Amino acid sequence: MENKLQQKINSKTKPIGSLGKLETVALQIGKIQHTLSPELRKPTVLIFAGDHGLVEEGVSPFPKEVTYQMVMNFLNGGAAISVFCKQNGLNLRVVDAGVDFDFSRDLNIIHAKIARGTQNILKAPAMDMEICQSAMDKGRQLIQHEYDAGCNIIGFGEMGIGNTSSAALLMHKITGFTLDECTGRGTGHDDAGLQRKINILKKASSLYNPKLPLEILAVFGGLEIAMMCGAMLEAKEKGMVIMVDGFITTAAFMIAHAVNSSIMNNAIFCHISNEKGHKLMHKYLKVEALIDLDMRLGEGSGVAVTYPIIQSAVNFLNEMASFEDARVSNKN
Amino acid sequence: MENKLQQKINSKTKPIGSLGKLETVALQIGKIQHTLSPELRKPTVLIFAGDHGLVEEGVSPFPKEVTYQMVMNFLNGGAAISVFCKQNGLNLRVVDAGVDFDFSRDLNIIHAKIARGTQNILKAPAMDMEICQSAMDKGRQLIQHEYDAGCNIIGFGEMGIGNTSSAALLMHKITGFTLDECTGRGTGHDDAGLQRKINILKKASSLYNPKLPLEILAVFGGLEIAMMCGAMLEAKEKGMVIMVDGFITTAAFMIAHAVNSSIMNNAIFCHISNEKGHKLMHKYLKVEALIDLDMRLGEGSGVAVTYPIIQSAVNFLNEMASFEDARVSNKN
Repeated sequence: MENKLQQKINSKTKPIGSLGKLETVALQIGKIQHTLSPELRKPTVLIFAGDHGLVEEGVSPFPKEVTYQMVMNFLNGGAAISVFCKQNGLNLRVVDAGVDFDFSRDLNIIHAKIARGTQNILKAPAMDMEICQSAMDKGRQLIQHEYDAGCNIIGFGEMGIGNTSSAALLMHKITGFTLDECTGRGTGHDDAGLQRKINILKKASSLYNPKLPLEILAVFGGLEIAMMCGAMLEAKEKGMVIMVDGFITTAAFMIAHAVNSSIMNNAIFCHISNEKGHKLMHKYLKVEALIDLDMRLGEGSGVAVTYPIIQSAVNFLNEMASFEDARVSNKN
Repeated sequence: MENKLQQKINSKTKPIGSLGKLETVALQIGKIQHTLSPELRKPTVLIFAGDHGLVEEGVSPFPKEVTYQMVMNFLNGGAAISVFCKQNGLNLRVVDAGVDFDFSRDLNIIHAKIARGTQNILKAPAMDMEICQSAMDKGRQLIQHEYDAGCNIIGFGEMGIGNTSSAALLMHKITGFTLDECTGRGTGHDDAGLQRKINILKKASSLYNPKLPLEILAVFGGLEIAMMCGAMLEAKEKGMVIMVDGFITTAAFMIAHAVNSSIMNNAIFCHISNEKGHKLMHKYLKVEALIDLDMRLGEGSGVAVTYPIIQSAVNFLNEMASFEDARVSNKN
């Protein structure tokens, strides 16, 4: 299949290799779907939202309430991810994985609350294993649902004040990079705020020593991160294309990758975040993002902005003429 | 206007600066259009095609016929630029600026042929000043037409076997970078082919010593490059957004910039080509492209693939809620 795909790519009316990363993506999606004519069906972004007990220690300059307020903003179409999904024809689904707020049953949200946020890691593990597993299972169910509805390409986003702290801790434990290397400014710490955040994370890190990826996830993760991780693993099993972008989503991906390394075949890394640590994650995973717009917003915004480029990769493969079709002379 | 635009950008429900280059683009387009609510109307890509006399010396591995064959491919929807324009809602117009072929009057092409290609620069200047000026004037007329039809954002593409040679010569004369630095593999030279190309260009360069930008354009340029250059200058005067991508288009832009440096305010550099020299051009112009997908195809393909990102910049400015609108708490 790979050879045939490469032949088809090379037959198109363009110099060999001249579509660069679009060719790489076309080849990858053709391999994932086992076809010379891949299709992207019902592209969807799932945003998982959850609160973090550690926020009471002051790891974020924004108050915890912003998590539920931003969920309402997603639903009302006012957030960046709402605007970009609408523009680019992506379905957007917002999942309450563990927000500390009671959303009305009437809202167009997926009610999947496992708990009202995680524990403060300075006092107890963020989740016990059972809760973490419930979150992952729920994530798998949500993917099953999208898959049954005909979706074959899925992107991931998140919202959770404090979740760059979780992501930094997960990264530190999985990769061995220091917390100074893993910790960034999140939503916008100044130098003093960043140092305070690092000190809190170092203290949290020293309290536990989990070894297995899923133990690390339970102790330092978040409900939205665990649910996303389960969803990613299921998406891989279903043969879907998985779009990954920011720092928190990539932390979830790293856990999923530690559980099932073949998930890499299905993953497209969309945008490299300006959040410190994300570049190191890519280095660790030996991957490269398609684009770099200096964004650091989360929400899956990098996925939504990149999606048309992925569509371009599929479209050139399906729609461009070959030298033969177009009667264009090839290289001398 | 700039302050008000920045305030509007900062009021949106996102950490300050977190949309990175999308914020830069939104600010730029707001300034070009003198409004807090910019709009992109009838986005259009003009592809200028022309032949080059120097091709008879063997500067390209593809035969000259590919110029007209690819024009037919554009018109039939089979080229990369056709596919990407269709995907992203861009109007595509193909201009015969100087192809050595008689296109049927029935074809959906803009018949603007100034001559059947340029002179072989080893024997005579590519164009005399009168022909070069005619090409530029025609480019201006074409923009006037698009502007009258309501277009306010225009991208440029080109097709012309041999035109990376012209572009390298223009770059060399304008910037002072050596021809070894300016000359790349074009559509796909091997090492020997590249060296032969460089040797031919060095010979061509030594034959003339024009000083003024428009003299340089006439002696070393192409009909499609001159027409594009005139079009860019007119687009600037009309207050349009100008999308620039590859090596040849940027060579045309460099001449336009040497004539009217304020054109820079209207230019968005979309994609940085893998063609050697393009990165140096950006360094010389002190600009940065939005994306880098390792493409090196020309045709304006980088413009067409990047366009949704430019649309995202305008959309977030117009459609995202402010902290106040969405009742989201701001930073502590």
